[in-house]
Amino acid sequence: MKYLAIVSYDGTRYAGWQIQPNGDSIEEEIEKVLSKILNTPTKIYGSGRTDSGVHALGQTFHFEAKEITDLGKFTYSINSLLPKDIFIKNIKEVDDSFHARYLVKRKEYKYLINVGEYDPFEKDHIYQLLRPLDISLMKEGLKLFIGEHNFQNFTSKEEDESNFVRTIYEASIKEENNIITLDFVGSGFMRYMVRNLVGSLIEVGLHRLSIEELKKMMDTKKRKVCQYKAPANGLYLVEVKY
Amino acid sequence: MKYLAIVSYDGTRYAGWQIQPNGDSIEEEIEKVLSKILNTPTKIYGSGRTDSGVHALGQTFHFEAKEITDLGKFTYSINSLLPKDIFIKNIKEVDDSFHARYLVKRKEYKYLINVGEYDPFEKDHIYQLLRPLDISLMKEGLKLFIGEHNFQNFTSKEEDESNFVRTIYEASIKEENNIITLDFVGSGFMRYMVRNLVGSLIEVGLHRLSIEELKKMMDTKKRKVCQYKAPANGLYLVEVKY
Repeated sequence: MKYLAIVSYDGTRYAGWQIQPNGDSIEEEIEKVLSKILNTPTKIYGSGRTDSGVHALGQTFHFEAKEITDLGKFTYSINSLLPKDIFIKNIKEVDDSFHARYLVKRKEYKYLINVGEYDPFEKDHIYQLLRPLDISLMKEGLKLFIGEHNFQNFTSKEEDESNFVRTIYEASIKEENNIITLDFVGSGFMRYMVRNLVGSLIEVGLHRLSIEELKKMMDTKKRKVCQYKAPANGLYLVEVKY
Repeated sequence: MKYLAIVSYDGTRYAGWQIQPNGDSIEEEIEKVLSKILNTPTKIYGSGRTDSGVHALGQTFHFEAKEITDLGKFTYSINSLLPKDIFIKNIKEVDDSFHARYLVKRKEYKYLINVGEYDPFEKDHIYQLLRPLDISLMKEGLKLFIGEHNFQNFTSKEEDESNFVRTIYEASIKEENNIITLDFVGSGFMRYMVRNLVGSLIEVGLHRLSIEELKKMMDTKKRKVCQYKAPANGLYLVEVKY
């Protein structure tokens, strides 16, 4: 049988989602517990990676196992063995043809920025910028990203995809109690893409990058990768849709 | 000159406010940095202790030093040397007769309880009870604490004060998005007092302790110390008033 799980995690003390030779990964922690409970080596397949320090509210993965009769009890058992910064929210049975990575339709990410006073409680969960941002200018910049675009300049330099085109369906920005929340819903995001988009918008909001310059960065005649990567601690994978 | 500082800290990884032979204390971290910046051994005097794992949004302390000309710059320097989970919000000059502990008029504490789904991001900042509570019954219980009372049964067993009488001026309870917030404003609180009050109210909210039994616990003919101490991670020292 095939099962789809939704997991949330605080990525602070992990080297990222993917199993690494050095450092703990979320994938490894979950595989260890699943293999123990199912009493057989069990591989999990995530919707994609998240980088070191990046969080998830709704990362997804699938795995195969013999029939699990009580999924509620099973989920409870896994959570009781997992580290306290990883929490399986839900597990359900899916069709044999399902694949957590290949069948993704949309992904949603959000990014949090503190533009007020330093908050020692949220140091790992909200980027502590601590300076005001020009939101209306950032809104203008954000509009440039919506739609189908070649985002070759907003992924990592090492990334060498055959196709840099992605679609951003929705993007929004709001401010509440000195916390700015940026939200992105798209067909898929390349490595560092959200952090590069947000990093560039922060430069715009600080009046250090103009809308004209941002437009030039979207120009794809020659590849010139973005230099403004926002830190990992403000980024959350919110939801994966199939 | 005498100075009064307001400090907020995430108490998770500390043995408490007070300097301890074993384990890091917030007091020690601040004294180390102050002594370094002022270039002379400097002792700080807090408004009172907070226990291991307890947080503060507005703990206060005073210290003596030669005149500090630019307090904003001085505060910035201290914060840049302090661990990232301790943050000095403000420092101001006070009268020579000021004392951070002896002159306290009121203290405010709050306690946070998650009655919804487990939250891996708030595991150290909100008590993860994860069960519904009968708020209206807790409200009834909370009313018993308001006013001047002998709280001998709500401090630690080892505590042997000459006077167990304290006044709670205000107390409230509210629920928002599955987070219950209890708030207490009082003349002063003995060791474990807020956690014992909250722990007892949780028992009431779970229907495991009746209002009648709670009333009996307030009875002071013989000392019988409360057995329901709520965990440290949900407790915050909010404000100290002089």
